[in-house]
Amino acid sequence: MTTKELERLKEVKGAKIVENMSVDELVKELRGCTFGAGRLAKAVDIYEEMLNEETTKFMGIAGALVPAGMRNIIAEMIREGYVDVVVTTGANLVHDIIEALGEHHYKMRGADTNADMAVDDTWLREQGSDRIYDLIVHDKAFARLEDFIRGVFEELTRKNKRYSIKELLKAIGETLSDRDSILRSAVDSEVPIFCPAIADSMIGLHAWIYKQTSPLEVDAFDDMKDLIDIFCEAKRTGAIILGGGVPKNFIFQTALVAPPREEGREGFDYAIQITTKTPEDGSLSGATLEEAKSWGKIGGKAKAVTVYCDATIALPIIVAAVRERIARGRQ
Amino acid sequence: MTTKELERLKEVKGAKIVENMSVDELVKELRGCTFGAGRLAKAVDIYEEMLNEETTKFMGIAGALVPAGMRNIIAEMIREGYVDVVVTTGANLVHDIIEALGEHHYKMRGADTNADMAVDDTWLREQGSDRIYDLIVHDKAFARLEDFIRGVFEELTRKNKRYSIKELLKAIGETLSDRDSILRSAVDSEVPIFCPAIADSMIGLHAWIYKQTSPLEVDAFDDMKDLIDIFCEAKRTGAIILGGGVPKNFIFQTALVAPPREEGREGFDYAIQITTKTPEDGSLSGATLEEAKSWGKIGGKAKAVTVYCDATIALPIIVAAVRERIARGRQ
Amino acid sequence: MTTKELERLKEVKGAKIVENMSVDELVKELRGCTFGAGRLAKAVDIYEEMLNEETTKFMGIAGALVPAGMRNIIAEMIREGYVDVVVTTGANLVHDIIEALGEHHYKMRGADTNADMAVDDTWLREQGSDRIYDLIVHDKAFARLEDFIRGVFEELTRKNKRYSIKELLKAIGETLSDRDSILRSAVDSEVPIFCPAIADSMIGLHAWIYKQTSPLEVDAFDDMKDLIDIFCEAKRTGAIILGGGVPKNFIFQTALVAPPREEGREGFDYAIQITTKTPEDGSLSGATLEEAKSWGKIGGKAKAVTVYCDATIALPIIVAAVRERIARGRQ
Amino acid sequence: MTTKELERLKEVKGAKIVENMSVDELVKELRGCTFGAGRLAKAVDIYEEMLNEETTKFMGIAGALVPAGMRNIIAEMIREGYVDVVVTTGANLVHDIIEALGEHHYKMRGADTNADMAVDDTWLREQGSDRIYDLIVHDKAFARLEDFIRGVFEELTRKNKRYSIKELLKAIGETLSDRDSILRSAVDSEVPIFCPAIADSMIGLHAWIYKQTSPLEVDAFDDMKDLIDIFCEAKRTGAIILGGGVPKNFIFQTALVAPPREEGREGFDYAIQITTKTPEDGSLSGATLEEAKSWGKIGGKAKAVTVYCDATIALPIIVAAVRERIARGRQ
Repeated sequence: MTTKELERLKEVKGAKIVENMSVDELVKELRGCTFGAGRLAKAVDIYEEMLNEETTKFMGIAGALVPAGMRNIIAEMIREGYVDVVVTTGANLVHDIIEALGEHHYKMRGADTNADMAVDDTWLREQGSDRIYDLIVHDKAFARLEDFIRGVFEELTRKNKRYSIKELLKAIGETLSDRDSILRSAVDSEVPIFCPAIADSMIGLHAWIYKQTSPLEVDAFDDMKDLIDIFCEAKRTGAIILGGGVPKNFIFQTALVAPPREEGREGFDYAIQITTKTPEDGSLSGATLEEAKSWGKIGGKAKAVTVYCDATIALPIIVAAVRERIARGRQ
Repeated sequence: MTTKELERLKEVKGAKIVENMSVDELVKELRGCTFGAGRLAKAVDIYEEMLNEETTKFMGIAGALVPAGMRNIIAEMIREGYVDVVVTTGANLVHDIIEALGEHHYKMRGADTNADMAVDDTWLREQGSDRIYDLIVHDKAFARLEDFIRGVFEELTRKNKRYSIKELLKAIGETLSDRDSILRSAVDSEVPIFCPAIADSMIGLHAWIYKQTSPLEVDAFDDMKDLIDIFCEAKRTGAIILGGGVPKNFIFQTALVAPPREEGREGFDYAIQITTKTPEDGSLSGATLEEAKSWGKIGGKAKAVTVYCDATIALPIIVAAVRERIARGRQ
Repeated sequence: MTTKELERLKEVKGAKIVENMSVDELVKELRGCTFGAGRLAKAVDIYEEMLNEETTKFMGIAGALVPAGMRNIIAEMIREGYVDVVVTTGANLVHDIIEALGEHHYKMRGADTNADMAVDDTWLREQGSDRIYDLIVHDKAFARLEDFIRGVFEELTRKNKRYSIKELLKAIGETLSDRDSILRSAVDSEVPIFCPAIADSMIGLHAWIYKQTSPLEVDAFDDMKDLIDIFCEAKRTGAIILGGGVPKNFIFQTALVAPPREEGREGFDYAIQITTKTPEDGSLSGATLEEAKSWGKIGGKAKAVTVYCDATIALPIIVAAVRERIARGRQ
Repeated sequence: MTTKELERLKEVKGAKIVENMSVDELVKELRGCTFGAGRLAKAVDIYEEMLNEETTKFMGIAGALVPAGMRNIIAEMIREGYVDVVVTTGANLVHDIIEALGEHHYKMRGADTNADMAVDDTWLREQGSDRIYDLIVHDKAFARLEDFIRGVFEELTRKNKRYSIKELLKAIGETLSDRDSILRSAVDSEVPIFCPAIADSMIGLHAWIYKQTSPLEVDAFDDMKDLIDIFCEAKRTGAIILGGGVPKNFIFQTALVAPPREEGREGFDYAIQITTKTPEDGSLSGATLEEAKSWGKIGGKAKAVTVYCDATIALPIIVAAVRERIARGRQ
């Protein structure tokens, strides 16, 4: 910062709350605030610009967002063109399929107060109930999943033995009739879904079981070409990173091998990161977007912001606010 | 949990986002979600019930919420009866005064991306600029504060030498002409402000300077009676805890010495905690509200929820949503 | 950073572990590491230098360190000259007294695995057991405390009606016969203990009860002079901050009013902060030591490090390592 | 907890520090403490028991532990039989190779105080320096890596076109001459290394480049059989989870498909988790080991503990303490 820049800093402008505010009216009140509020408002501004500026938008999804109730929002983002490419964990896809098959996740009573309380996980095990923080999935949902996945594998290998992970996920999506599903929405909207760590999920476990008796070849690296091509062909690129993990790095590393675009422009042009992980232990999940600039993953002049917040809180707000702006813009 | 309770758990119901949602419409969509989203929605429901059920509402404010831009919201909560008692840190009051005197906090550019970046704190020192994460206060604001506080002390000690902390803060509030100030709003609305650790603030430092030449006696314990009396006389009690620290404990400890009310009811009846601190290191700031039940600080049947979130994000949402409900209720 | 500085950076040197290492041998292996390991090793180096360089050492203690089992270590630090001034929360002193009176804290079984599990806090309340994360204190310990504190107040007010908080704590320490107590060790070693938020503790509650029938005046600001005088008279100053809260700020704010020493030197010369709180939500507890430089709380050339770690892990390691070095130095 | 269990809780026993303690002497002092200290001590006890009880030990490694200086410790754990199976991220292997090739990571000066300070990541980019929190890697190290990996791929595809990820990593390890490398140590000690998300790393990027001109097939699922077989054939199983991410889940999910062993025993028998991630946002990385019991990933009677701590601090302490015990046991 220079003395001139210091002198030009704008005053913090406190947020005011009036009756019956729309989500975006509230977000705009947060623009003059700092800490998380300021970052949240900035994320909406950046997302709006991404949508207005012909940007290819890569979304990384880590964390149990689908079981928590974010499935509709994510599927709708795909269907409505808020996202062009998805990179996610196997678990989110597994839980998407479970819901598409008519099975459910159940909200624990304890969720009302402090989760974990008064629940004995060993007892849950006996009840055939599997816990994800403050929600429950039943073993029978996974049994349904198994039947379904096995059917997909059988159908697939009838035609061909060799698939990329992306093709496998597309085939699953095509088999699902629930149009609210993420996988199905992606098929319908021609949004590719990447899942480099698919082996690390129930889908992986069932692939292992299936492969014990039938041939199925899924190459670990085949998808990289497609992802990198999408990045290279994009006019502008944006990343929306929910949580960290493999999806975050897999999205950003595409920028490492892409040639710089015109005017020496390299890396993502926009980036929004929503995370509860902070940088102090050096993990990539908690790494700042500034750090990503040193690698060329994000451009030196990129518009980028990290919102330190549970994604189940920040994502709905950001999407609702951006949606309101886009709707207004159409009028 | 019993088998019956397990069977009766409700399905997670994914949030849907449509165009032009009001804040409360969004919050209601989060009701069926889990993790942070479910907790945030629960907090709004609890706050609404507090407001509808003749509850004396104690708000604890820790963290630099005033500099960050939450001053208007807090002052308005006081004026509109959303809060009946405030316990806060000295720092929040100091920054409230600074703004009331016409001075400002300044939002750093870096706030747009990752704070801290490209700022040299030793250089800021030379510029007379003091940093609070991603905002700046100038030394001259503190100089104004000094003059003001000295004036209040002089005025006060002309009448009397001995004050409780609450009386001191009330006198400061009466001297401020800015009706948007927290201290002034509290005076205007007859909401008492407690600040047990007032010595730990610029007000404390100026009291020390003043006392070097003039008598001023402020008792450390005098306010406890008032706070406990308010608790004991309340029909129902609710706590809204922003951050942890001294305000959290000071509010909850009042319940330790209050006699149980009718039907063996003890402790706070409602509690909402907004914090980024988790319980693993055993600090009181991160302690769960469940833990508070073992102490009798919160009633065994209290409605209580912790929202793990930056208060600058969660507070505006909760207040906007509750306000919308109250406005609707009046129609 | 300049290009020259970049070129001169030292290689990360991986830690090696051999059989039967002393704590300091291990810490020295961590010197070449980064992230938490490097910071922990740096903290030991800074503390060693503080001890060798005629430094007045201020220790801030927040968080339930005494109940967790850090009481002996802290008391010993006081007795052995590792600390010259203590600023703490009322809670740590309350629990110090409880142990001095022969009462105990109890480690929950659940502590072995994941705390909180299978414990019903409402049931604990019925058992007269109060929980602090993974430990228990019984109501009867607090009953003993009440008798003791009341006795001290009676004794004190027989002589005089007016005390500073520091004097009150000294009187309590003198009354305790347990030489392992923090309060008693402080008396024996002439180390002053400050507790600006004493009202926010059981001591405060009992003061309130006592004051209902008997006069007792404890000024909220009286101690500031002593603390500031100690800072001003010190040749060099060091801060050891365990957790954040009021103790952290109360120690650092002394530097705000102290005149610069020779050569324009201002602020603390050394600072070690051990915390689990990160800076993103702008709270002072999570504020970096760099930020403190912008205020002049820490000198621009101070040696300072934050160790992001549970203090019950980092403090014993640091003390054991420093102790080993000092012992070796004496040989 | 029952009343009887409550009555039988043991007193917290404060840690004492004497001169010249060995690491294990210190850890034993922490056994009577709670919070992080008690958990750390418990982790050492559990690890010691794993080593004494014919346990197949699976270690998950996420986070940038190799760049931070934990490479020697991990490699030595492999060579000395402290670990039987490794599951890790591609990044840790990339950085292991970089060091094996004679390249280095560099510790930033800022690491001494607060990292990030006074570093401009855009400038670092221009210098060809890539930042990982408080350390730097130079682009030329990655250029060396590229040459090396390409050579391995060429050599491999001369013999065969099709490999599992495990075989690929073994081939890399065989090519490295640095016996201190993790990959080489694993080859020398016949410890398999799994890396399900290998595509998400520089190795993945170079596989993509290589595959543009030459055939190389690496199946995403092939390794699962081997990992599951190791689990099923083990007499007892233990998990040491450093960080969360894919390695954590990939290790635990093996237990989901393994048949229960004798006496209905299922899941891991021992588990130690070292993490800075807490459970509140529902991510698997922060999930408690209790939650894992509801899935059958960890046995209902497993000995398990989570240490909430930066792994660069906790791992060296645990390994040094266990090593000391094993050495003593041999005498």
